[in-house]
Amino acid sequence: MSQSDGLRVALIGTGFMGRAHANAWLTAPRFFALPRAVRPALVVGRDPARTRAAAESFGWESWSTDWREAVQRDDIDAVDICVPGNLHAEMTLAALAAGKHVLCEKPLANSVGEAEIMTDAAQAAESLGVLSMCGFSYRRTPALALAKRLIDDGRIGRVRHVRAQYLQDWLSDATAPMTWRLDKEQAGSGTLGDIGAHSVDLAQWLTGSRISGVSALLHTFVSERPASGEQVGLGGTGDTSGARAAVTVDDAAAFTARFDDGAVGVFEATRMALGRKNANRIEINGTRGSVAFDFERMNELEFFESESDSLSEGFRRVQATEAGHPYLEGWWPVGHGLGYEHTFTHEVVDFVRAIGAGTAPSPSFGEALQVQRVLAAVERSAADDSRFTHVDKENR
Amino acid sequence: MSQSDGLRVALIGTGFMGRAHANAWLTAPRFFALPRAVRPALVVGRDPARTRAAAESFGWESWSTDWREAVQRDDIDAVDICVPGNLHAEMTLAALAAGKHVLCEKPLANSVGEAEIMTDAAQAAESLGVLSMCGFSYRRTPALALAKRLIDDGRIGRVRHVRAQYLQDWLSDATAPMTWRLDKEQAGSGTLGDIGAHSVDLAQWLTGSRISGVSALLHTFVSERPASGEQVGLGGTGDTSGARAAVTVDDAAAFTARFDDGAVGVFEATRMALGRKNANRIEINGTRGSVAFDFERMNELEFFESESDSLSEGFRRVQATEAGHPYLEGWWPVGHGLGYEHTFTHEVVDFVRAIGAGTAPSPSFGEALQVQRVLAAVERSAADDSRFTHVDKENR
Amino acid sequence: MSQSDGLRVALIGTGFMGRAHANAWLTAPRFFALPRAVRPALVVGRDPARTRAAAESFGWESWSTDWREAVQRDDIDAVDICVPGNLHAEMTLAALAAGKHVLCEKPLANSVGEAEIMTDAAQAAESLGVLSMCGFSYRRTPALALAKRLIDDGRIGRVRHVRAQYLQDWLSDATAPMTWRLDKEQAGSGTLGDIGAHSVDLAQWLTGSRISGVSALLHTFVSERPASGEQVGLGGTGDTSGARAAVTVDDAAAFTARFDDGAVGVFEATRMALGRKNANRIEINGTRGSVAFDFERMNELEFFESESDSLSEGFRRVQATEAGHPYLEGWWPVGHGLGYEHTFTHEVVDFVRAIGAGTAPSPSFGEALQVQRVLAAVERSAADDSRFTHVDKENR
Amino acid sequence: MSQSDGLRVALIGTGFMGRAHANAWLTAPRFFALPRAVRPALVVGRDPARTRAAAESFGWESWSTDWREAVQRDDIDAVDICVPGNLHAEMTLAALAAGKHVLCEKPLANSVGEAEIMTDAAQAAESLGVLSMCGFSYRRTPALALAKRLIDDGRIGRVRHVRAQYLQDWLSDATAPMTWRLDKEQAGSGTLGDIGAHSVDLAQWLTGSRISGVSALLHTFVSERPASGEQVGLGGTGDTSGARAAVTVDDAAAFTARFDDGAVGVFEATRMALGRKNANRIEINGTRGSVAFDFERMNELEFFESESDSLSEGFRRVQATEAGHPYLEGWWPVGHGLGYEHTFTHEVVDFVRAIGAGTAPSPSFGEALQVQRVLAAVERSAADDSRFTHVDKENR
Repeated sequence: MSQSDGLRVALIGTGFMGRAHANAWLTAPRFFALPRAVRPALVVGRDPARTRAAAESFGWESWSTDWREAVQRDDIDAVDICVPGNLHAEMTLAALAAGKHVLCEKPLANSVGEAEIMTDAAQAAESLGVLSMCGFSYRRTPALALAKRLIDDGRIGRVRHVRAQYLQDWLSDATAPMTWRLDKEQAGSGTLGDIGAHSVDLAQWLTGSRISGVSALLHTFVSERPASGEQVGLGGTGDTSGARAAVTVDDAAAFTARFDDGAVGVFEATRMALGRKNANRIEINGTRGSVAFDFERMNELEFFESESDSLSEGFRRVQATEAGHPYLEGWWPVGHGLGYEHTFTHEVVDFVRAIGAGTAPSPSFGEALQVQRVLAAVERSAADDSRFTHVDKENR
Repeated sequence: MSQSDGLRVALIGTGFMGRAHANAWLTAPRFFALPRAVRPALVVGRDPARTRAAAESFGWESWSTDWREAVQRDDIDAVDICVPGNLHAEMTLAALAAGKHVLCEKPLANSVGEAEIMTDAAQAAESLGVLSMCGFSYRRTPALALAKRLIDDGRIGRVRHVRAQYLQDWLSDATAPMTWRLDKEQAGSGTLGDIGAHSVDLAQWLTGSRISGVSALLHTFVSERPASGEQVGLGGTGDTSGARAAVTVDDAAAFTARFDDGAVGVFEATRMALGRKNANRIEINGTRGSVAFDFERMNELEFFESESDSLSEGFRRVQATEAGHPYLEGWWPVGHGLGYEHTFTHEVVDFVRAIGAGTAPSPSFGEALQVQRVLAAVERSAADDSRFTHVDKENR
Repeated sequence: MSQSDGLRVALIGTGFMGRAHANAWLTAPRFFALPRAVRPALVVGRDPARTRAAAESFGWESWSTDWREAVQRDDIDAVDICVPGNLHAEMTLAALAAGKHVLCEKPLANSVGEAEIMTDAAQAAESLGVLSMCGFSYRRTPALALAKRLIDDGRIGRVRHVRAQYLQDWLSDATAPMTWRLDKEQAGSGTLGDIGAHSVDLAQWLTGSRISGVSALLHTFVSERPASGEQVGLGGTGDTSGARAAVTVDDAAAFTARFDDGAVGVFEATRMALGRKNANRIEINGTRGSVAFDFERMNELEFFESESDSLSEGFRRVQATEAGHPYLEGWWPVGHGLGYEHTFTHEVVDFVRAIGAGTAPSPSFGEALQVQRVLAAVERSAADDSRFTHVDKENR
Repeated sequence: MSQSDGLRVALIGTGFMGRAHANAWLTAPRFFALPRAVRPALVVGRDPARTRAAAESFGWESWSTDWREAVQRDDIDAVDICVPGNLHAEMTLAALAAGKHVLCEKPLANSVGEAEIMTDAAQAAESLGVLSMCGFSYRRTPALALAKRLIDDGRIGRVRHVRAQYLQDWLSDATAPMTWRLDKEQAGSGTLGDIGAHSVDLAQWLTGSRISGVSALLHTFVSERPASGEQVGLGGTGDTSGARAAVTVDDAAAFTARFDDGAVGVFEATRMALGRKNANRIEINGTRGSVAFDFERMNELEFFESESDSLSEGFRRVQATEAGHPYLEGWWPVGHGLGYEHTFTHEVVDFVRAIGAGTAPSPSFGEALQVQRVLAAVERSAADDSRFTHVDKENR
């Protein structure tokens, strides 16, 4: 088949992320001009019935329970990997080796070592025109993309402070059942890698500088939960039977940080902040202004700018829904906000456009590896009495 | 073709509303269990190139520039009408006569007379199993559906006050070009029918009572604008050439109201409230509590409830994103908000479910006719020195 | 005594307003440079024990139960009248006749006729150097004074919309006892004169234009309440004994309005909006920007300004606590907000400064009379089927 | 003089804090029933003219430039110390030795050693009926006192998370002049002791548990500023003359913490968060609910409580202005908020009531010493690569 037939995509995963990505692949071409059509070719899941149902309701052309099919089929151009972190490396390496473009969910891997291998492979593949991207989807929130533009335009000056919180509460209840996200084997870490990773990526991307060192604390409030029959990628509610399972990851992560340009950061991630549902917040203070964001009000950016006349200074509540705002050219009239799912739609748009242009998309695996190194430094610091711990330097 | 082949839908209109509905028809089956599959069979627009492009990007099976095709084709089960109000009656009557289910955008018509004829036709058709619904989509905002549930459950007691504002600012600029929405011939009225109608519908639906009389004021701030080449339903930005066009509708509408159960209301609609982008707001105060909503924060409902101990009373900011909240069973985890477009997705869900069950969907044409009567009373009052004017009684 | 001995003040009233004013007279000299010292000379109340206690706790030099003492004593320079509206005219006229400066609480009187007589007397007295002011204290909220400055500076352009709501809930409970504020004889009107008057004054003052006509609705939800032993000006909680008293004023007032410069207004006042405690709100939209205010967050002004680049436009939350903001020169560092009581402190400051300068303070009785005329037009319209009713022209 | 003549107070300091306290001593008796009258007997400052002016405008009976007068005069019952931290110990010890009750501003001292000596002296004095209190005034914010009550009542369950930020921006401008608050000699530390101390006190007081260890980072963004002629306690704006002065304290402090009951905390204090004026924020998440507060909206408490039916769960915006709320019995009707200054009014009320009852007021010097130990641990950790550092145990 020729390229003109469109980009044939295989999606691996039918859980929360799998559904979000499936929807994004279908929505992107409808609201954005893309260089190539998108063909939803194959969806892969563990459970046959569930996978088939997903394929049918979303209109994917075929389905399978064997992820290797996505890699081996000639008629697949790109593979989108939405499974737990312990499976990322193997799938990604196989896909790249087979010449497939790869969109891999975050965190890139469960260890720096794996992430390095994946990054090396991605860089090698890139020279052959095979591209990769890591799914830090929050970057594609219009309000945050607007923040990035304002910062890049110098509107807040030189950055001094970053404060990021990612607060949820779905694990507050100590009787909520075990899930794969609480199993170190599959998830790599708890809040740190699941949601803290988003904060780290946003902080580095928005400021354009890297975290050079951290001093960290990790904590598990509930160390044992009712076992559940949940399987990978399915997000089930669990049929508990009295059995208990050990929580082997952190419930909360907190760390201070220094950035390589002199800024100071404070980070916190938890799934036990009762009443906070998806409070992915970041505030950045510079020498001339500030931006602040909370995903619970995802269509708004708070923006402060020093003025010569301070009479009317104040944080502005910018509704990031204007046609001129990032990603908004294809949507609704101003004030008619978007939902969570379109961070993925925009991710797909950027991925397909990069493929069309033959240029490396961002966040690259290298950027994701840097996030991984920060997470690793957090874990090392937490294990070493919170001592300030340098983030390993990129050496590639 | 048998019913098992799915509900074959014809969509008339490719403008802002047309795109919103097109997307909704495709999205609904993916996130909700529907009694019948949806087949996007035909899209109709005025401009051939634009209509064809819409059909292709959204994946509709066929397209036409002749709306009669939607009515005449045997293989169409339902017609979705997204065109200016002056065209609603003719299209709806033809579709009903041809045995097609009809989803008609609001306001139902540009006059009470037309709306009555449409309502009569809808009631006649209903006895033959042909169903109709009017597109007051804001009812399907989860936070407002939650408000409705709380009110129906008696949580705010007996309603005393309704205050509804619908504030936009896209016409603030006196040099913004003419559009069909400013032409009485096509639009029927200005802010009153375009956005004020939503407030009237929400107020009556949420309280479960009818507006019995109004005292109103209509005002046009900018009576002439640059002419534009814009055509019906296309929402173009207008190629102006020095020509001027008369604005023949209201820029702002304001009225006080009495409800038939003793409540008092205050309504305002404008497209000239600078800084307010889509502030569709409604607050209802009862004898035991209150609800308040602003579409600019569409995923939130403010809810106040009197408690025996007033120590911790306060308006709650309920994030209407829980699995147990209306329409939320099929979406994302809590705190991951929805966007504007899914008011239409939910509208389609309810419409298809009603068709599947063979029960009359709501808002019925009769309910929409009642809204129309309120709008007519507003216009009569405004033309009669704001005198208190009774809303005509339903006599069917 | 010479003027250098300070301004000797008599305060009539020891209820809610009396206490607020007593505190203001003592606080003003401490935080502001005043042209004359303030001597709290005499406090007058009905109940001897209560009045004496008030004098002692607040440190007033003498007390009395006879208001005529305030007028007759030679050693009184100014009289501050904080009693129900039906007593304003008599006291004010006597005080002016005796050459005392007068600060009279709002509304100026319970009828336009009385207000006219008072205004005539004030104008006559002014020519003799005897000054008067009406206590529309909300004007002295720093955030609203800032709004006034921004509007006067042209920052929002020409005004198109005014929307004012004054929402409270302390009468929601139908078993709350009768008070003088619900007795037409004493209070003149209900929400209309008590709180709606503030909205009317703010609207006219902020916009700099007058309301020329209104279309109004008044409503009483609870027409009878438990009687109470409460006396004038004492704000007691009432010792009920099964007796019932008729509520003779409005519980809610709502009206649309036209201003003499073409702006359109919507006003609502109620004491039955559950959950709203003192939501004195006003929003003004002009051709270039907007301001919005809610007294429940009295230290903040929302301000929107159109910019050439709309990328970062949004309502700013201005904390009106900067040293350069109105009335803030004498207070705390930025961000350390003020409380309700200092609207009165600032009122006293402006009154004393006007006396010191020998210039007429604002709001003058003439301005207050104009408010009264609007209230009268509201009542006439409400009694005449809400018909649009012109506000009587000033003819003095 | 007998005790019945009232409590004769000497106030040391005429700067920002001195003025706030002076006002509080005069205001407290007016709005609260106190067991003893208050007599503002003596005010002490460095600058004669300024001190005399302060005495006159606030109505204090005498003034001096020698603080020893406050200690030596027989007719002084209590001494209120509002000067930089390096002077606290000497003044406090002298006052206690002379049998005067002491209210000492926070932080208690500039070192743990001084704080220990002061605490020993206070405990010795207490056995003789001489009482002491440290001025952590934010505890007396009604909304925070309400939070304390809700937590004590078990409404949020067992505490898991504390997150406290104290954000200001008045040092963002690198050209703002030097002040005593930036001089380690006088101030002890920078943001840490000035504002971070408030967060530490609030966190320990609200949760009822102690911080057991910290991992900290301190940072100075601007290490040199224009010199100023400012003197101690006067808060002048500085007459700069080209000279530069070294900033010897931290501009920002950040630390993670562990509490002795298992909770985890994250703290940040800065005076360089542009746009944040006095954002003294604290949020506490427990196993059943949460509270959140921001001093920029000081009359509001956010409160979340888990309910059996999650349908209407949400953070409530409680306006802490009801008569039944802490400290509100003497103030205005609901919704008529208080200002910053009354945290001090309430502090005076509690201090005088404790003196009247002969019971030890809170925060005691012992509580303030514990705060001091946390601050010391923060400094030790920051100097030791952010290593987790135990807070010294109380051994008295």
